[in-house]
Amino acid sequence: MTTTYAVSLVDVRTAAGILAGHAHRTPVITCASLDARAGAALFFKGEHLQKVGAFKFRGAFHAVSRLTDDVAARGVVTHSSGNHAQALALAALMRGVPAHVVMPSNAAAPKRRAVEGYGARVIECEPTLAARESTAARVLEETGATFIPPYDHPHIIAGQGTAALELLEAYPDLDAIIAPVGGGGLLAGTAITATSLRPSIRVYGAEPKGADDAARSFASGTLVPQTGPRTIADGLLTSLGEKTWPIIRDHCEDILTVSEEEILVAMRLAWERAKLLIEPSSAVAVAAAMSGRFSGSGDRIGVILSGGNVDLDRLPWVVTGA
Amino acid sequence: MTTTYAVSLVDVRTAAGILAGHAHRTPVITCASLDARAGAALFFKGEHLQKVGAFKFRGAFHAVSRLTDDVAARGVVTHSSGNHAQALALAALMRGVPAHVVMPSNAAAPKRRAVEGYGARVIECEPTLAARESTAARVLEETGATFIPPYDHPHIIAGQGTAALELLEAYPDLDAIIAPVGGGGLLAGTAITATSLRPSIRVYGAEPKGADDAARSFASGTLVPQTGPRTIADGLLTSLGEKTWPIIRDHCEDILTVSEEEILVAMRLAWERAKLLIEPSSAVAVAAAMSGRFSGSGDRIGVILSGGNVDLDRLPWVVTGA
Repeated sequence: MTTTYAVSLVDVRTAAGILAGHAHRTPVITCASLDARAGAALFFKGEHLQKVGAFKFRGAFHAVSRLTDDVAARGVVTHSSGNHAQALALAALMRGVPAHVVMPSNAAAPKRRAVEGYGARVIECEPTLAARESTAARVLEETGATFIPPYDHPHIIAGQGTAALELLEAYPDLDAIIAPVGGGGLLAGTAITATSLRPSIRVYGAEPKGADDAARSFASGTLVPQTGPRTIADGLLTSLGEKTWPIIRDHCEDILTVSEEEILVAMRLAWERAKLLIEPSSAVAVAAAMSGRFSGSGDRIGVILSGGNVDLDRLPWVVTGA
Repeated sequence: MTTTYAVSLVDVRTAAGILAGHAHRTPVITCASLDARAGAALFFKGEHLQKVGAFKFRGAFHAVSRLTDDVAARGVVTHSSGNHAQALALAALMRGVPAHVVMPSNAAAPKRRAVEGYGARVIECEPTLAARESTAARVLEETGATFIPPYDHPHIIAGQGTAALELLEAYPDLDAIIAPVGGGGLLAGTAITATSLRPSIRVYGAEPKGADDAARSFASGTLVPQTGPRTIADGLLTSLGEKTWPIIRDHCEDILTVSEEEILVAMRLAWERAKLLIEPSSAVAVAAAMSGRFSGSGDRIGVILSGGNVDLDRLPWVVTGA
């Protein structure tokens, strides 16, 4: 019996063709100082330098591009306080169609400014999942627009997989790849792409201990939803999806969990030593690379830096006067 | 009558050959948001991602490499509180020879830690130029080491020129290049390289109004020393040198000066919108690109981001509780 997954390498290559000339082919950056700490050679795929400052642009642009003209013209909708909202707003702007973004009233001001800066209409709601979903449903009904989810969608997963495709085109001989995992769009896209291109590669998810649904799902072999996440890595709070989970279950080597302290140490090192302006969710993957798991292995490890959207006035290591 | 300059394109190509495999070939990064503000297409050469976090590694590694074995074995010396010190320390470490770095007692702690982290011996002195020079002279006498100056040296200038060489190899059709100017090593190397490869290109220096010796020298046609600089761009406090000045005088289009406020605005934009973790000296070049000089010109402008060594606990836009 063959399991059918939501996405194959062919879909990722299709997405790459659609993204060419529209998304940045982000650089791969190395840093001897971080290598020495990890005991391995790390190859950082710099998606913080992607449009909107996050890999999310890949999936969103791909998904919006795949809509037919008449469907696209009615616009797109999502509910998100994070990078997917910015990504969808820009993708819609580039296609010339409306974007409606439902955001919780407690969303960080720079995130709201960025979404509005890309021309999207922001609809505020109470900061609960129920309010987000009901508000989004109302907007869908009013506009006839298409809902574009943040991760559990074949076009989103295929788009996110293009980061690993580029990384392996540049460095085909990697022994392993680490990607942060929240809803699993990036990790699923990475896992399908990397294991299809290079069957011997080991793909790891990296997750905060305080939001470890993927690790618990992986250990138990059953999709475990996330409840009550507590972590600074605000891009990794969500549960795995029905489409991302089977891919991750069958194509990943393991899910590595890291503590909040490890996340902050890794983020500070990445900023101070490697000049990588990454957000905490990216630092989760860096922390996993430096967790001791690879120490002395001499492995060549790709690390996908998912984004760089942080509030510069509230950096975690600064005691602000405010 | 022909003026002979300290450096030619041949020297820069020689330096590039020596640096290959030892220095990073840093990425060129673009950002639609900054382009929109500049009214031009900006191509950022990311030397903040260079080893030691600054272009200075290019010149230092080149200069140390050019020493004969017996001379190199006696070590190298410099006096610097900045990126050149880290660069020379790492270059010496890579060659396996001693580095002695004279640093003022008020140098920022992270800079001293970084220099020591590269295995150099730090010799503290009073924070005056006289004390730095006399202490360096004493160390030279004691050790028989070679003094490697931060900018006014042919091997340093040629090494710094390799950043522009890489930029123009990647983007041969640039209309202009902007580089920050302090002592002028980077700008002189950039100017020789760019005008030799592409005679129609316009090369600009970028300088803080509060340390505008290069602008005053350029306007008057005579080398004017810097006195009493007042700027946050701590890499650009020095005067032009006898070797860098004639190159800059004869190969640059102009020196653009920017205010402290423009520097801070540009630095914040570079961090927030482009995720470029650059230091204020780099932001001077970004500010010059956004100064209105190029607005609406449609020019394709290379901007050399000189480095990313900032004290993350004292970011200029954060009111710290300390």
